[in-house]
Amino acid sequence: MNDQKKYTEMTVGLGERSYPILAGPNLLDLIGEHAKEMGLLSPIAIITDSNVKSLYAERVLQSLENSGFTARILDFPAGESSKHLQTVSALYDGMVSLGPERKSGVIALGGGVPGDIAGFVAATYLRGMRFIQVPTTLLAQVDSAVGGKVGVDHAGGKNLIGAFHQPCRVTIDTRTLQTLDRRQIKAGLAEIIKHGVIADEALFQRICDILDRLLAVDDAIYQEIIPWNCRIKANVVEQDEKESGLRAILNFGHTIGHALETLTGYEHYLHGEAVAIGMLVEAQLGERLGITPLAVVEALASLLRKADYPLEKPDISADRLLDSMFRDKKVERGRLRFIFPAKMGDVTIQDVEDLDLIRDTWDQYMQP
Amino acid sequence: MNDQKKYTEMTVGLGERSYPILAGPNLLDLIGEHAKEMGLLSPIAIITDSNVKSLYAERVLQSLENSGFTARILDFPAGESSKHLQTVSALYDGMVSLGPERKSGVIALGGGVPGDIAGFVAATYLRGMRFIQVPTTLLAQVDSAVGGKVGVDHAGGKNLIGAFHQPCRVTIDTRTLQTLDRRQIKAGLAEIIKHGVIADEALFQRICDILDRLLAVDDAIYQEIIPWNCRIKANVVEQDEKESGLRAILNFGHTIGHALETLTGYEHYLHGEAVAIGMLVEAQLGERLGITPLAVVEALASLLRKADYPLEKPDISADRLLDSMFRDKKVERGRLRFIFPAKMGDVTIQDVEDLDLIRDTWDQYMQP
Repeated sequence: MNDQKKYTEMTVGLGERSYPILAGPNLLDLIGEHAKEMGLLSPIAIITDSNVKSLYAERVLQSLENSGFTARILDFPAGESSKHLQTVSALYDGMVSLGPERKSGVIALGGGVPGDIAGFVAATYLRGMRFIQVPTTLLAQVDSAVGGKVGVDHAGGKNLIGAFHQPCRVTIDTRTLQTLDRRQIKAGLAEIIKHGVIADEALFQRICDILDRLLAVDDAIYQEIIPWNCRIKANVVEQDEKESGLRAILNFGHTIGHALETLTGYEHYLHGEAVAIGMLVEAQLGERLGITPLAVVEALASLLRKADYPLEKPDISADRLLDSMFRDKKVERGRLRFIFPAKMGDVTIQDVEDLDLIRDTWDQYMQP
Repeated sequence: MNDQKKYTEMTVGLGERSYPILAGPNLLDLIGEHAKEMGLLSPIAIITDSNVKSLYAERVLQSLENSGFTARILDFPAGESSKHLQTVSALYDGMVSLGPERKSGVIALGGGVPGDIAGFVAATYLRGMRFIQVPTTLLAQVDSAVGGKVGVDHAGGKNLIGAFHQPCRVTIDTRTLQTLDRRQIKAGLAEIIKHGVIADEALFQRICDILDRLLAVDDAIYQEIIPWNCRIKANVVEQDEKESGLRAILNFGHTIGHALETLTGYEHYLHGEAVAIGMLVEAQLGERLGITPLAVVEALASLLRKADYPLEKPDISADRLLDSMFRDKKVERGRLRFIFPAKMGDVTIQDVEDLDLIRDTWDQYMQP
């Protein structure tokens, strides 16, 4: 345990809503201590899913109890298919039974789904409670736990129900990556690749260079890569907390990716897998619009292929894809908004009115 | 219609979340024009209850359509018993079918219940949409439509599920008071009396002087009283938007009032009726603690009696009352927090640890 203090710390600067991100090994054991420093009150709710409950929830509970807190684990079945209002409703019942006060806290423990759900419960119980994001998947550690987007899906679209509610801390225990399977690592890696494409050519190059070590979950590599990615995400969020402009660049690959997830009932693809296809198709669309250089499309395709993403085209018509995209939050004045790489590490936000071009790009899409 | 411009306007000053309150006759017909000025986009959702739908929703729809908007009425059964998550869930379905964008708007049309529910839908759909509060009951016009508290009840307690989400405008058509029955007027009047007790002795005196005209729904009197009360509420909200301190003074009468509502299943009392009893019992408790002068208790009791509130003690034991109060949001560090009049027009916030004194005050409570 003498490596407990070996963590990096950074701040997401959002005025009175600023908060620290801590990343390092075995931080799960410090959550009680940190909750005490932050002045949270008992009882504390640890909200997690059935998978993460069996892996880490008892350890977090122990840490809280060691620091004098009373706490309870509230869990729900693992999977994106749990990310709906009924789960939130059941968690409200659990909260009522636990009886927290306004100054009690919520721990959001797990991947993107528990983080989004627990964050939404924290945003909407007692008109808003403080919560700590404790992401345990790569995707959550480099992306979803940072930035305050919380919410659940609706049959009509992904994340249609939600809020902006910043955590009061993000605690990343990098050791939790060791319990992920390769598919989950790759799903998180898709967002890391996205960060490289939209904001940091050096990161993209580094990913290409160390892909094998990333896929092999090399602990030292993630000590480097996770804070790097949190910083990229935090920089964007600091400039545009509520996505009135710039923050939309984080949606590269997501306009199409979300539609693919929605149309496959959130069951077929992991989020990062849908984003991988989404990035590729959107880059190809950008290329046809004369925005994205062919070299960028090829570099992206090559990396995704090397990492062996499931890039096969799903059996979804262009019209169904368009229909789903039009229901998304990202639509404005009836136009579809896309993020296109202008060069590696830089993007442009553009509305696309030529639906035939989108249809044709989708129809022509082939696994690279 | 030449009196359409005869309205008063004030601002709730909350920095980037500031918004105007307009109060005057026939403002319902200006909602379309105002929505256009504010840059809302189609489609607009008019969320209301079954009662208000038949009275005013078509008129608001017409006003929006006259200004070039597409809009749709989404309604739910009238009554506090609709104020739960299932109603919100059905409204989300309606929103998905309507397909608004982030910059579309929501109109919250009706009393406190539609305002709270529609505001919560606006707070949580597409991670937060702009909404106009259009209160049509006295209670909503002088209290609940101002200040951004939105949410729904849970079987375990009132308003346990909710958020702070400020409207972008409050439009009060004073003529809508003409369709309220005397019971609803009195329910709203309870909050006006509360404002007098907690913040403005002159208001309390004025209410005593013009009680008959208030109960008779004299239009001219409400042109004076509504803006006066909105200003009192706005002043408190401006100083403490999210109830970290001062805003709690608005809860005078509500610590006990909420418990009475919860324990009677939200069916027996109108909110203002429960608050009337709550104010009286809390003032009596304050008197026993040596905080509230007997003269204040008597002035309050005299006014409530004159207005003929249903002040009979309900068949609820002191222990059940305490249990319900401890589940409320207002609990902090396990203590019950009360607002006690220190003199007419001024209050103090105090935690009460002596539960026997609370029990005894409740047991001794008699209709004045």
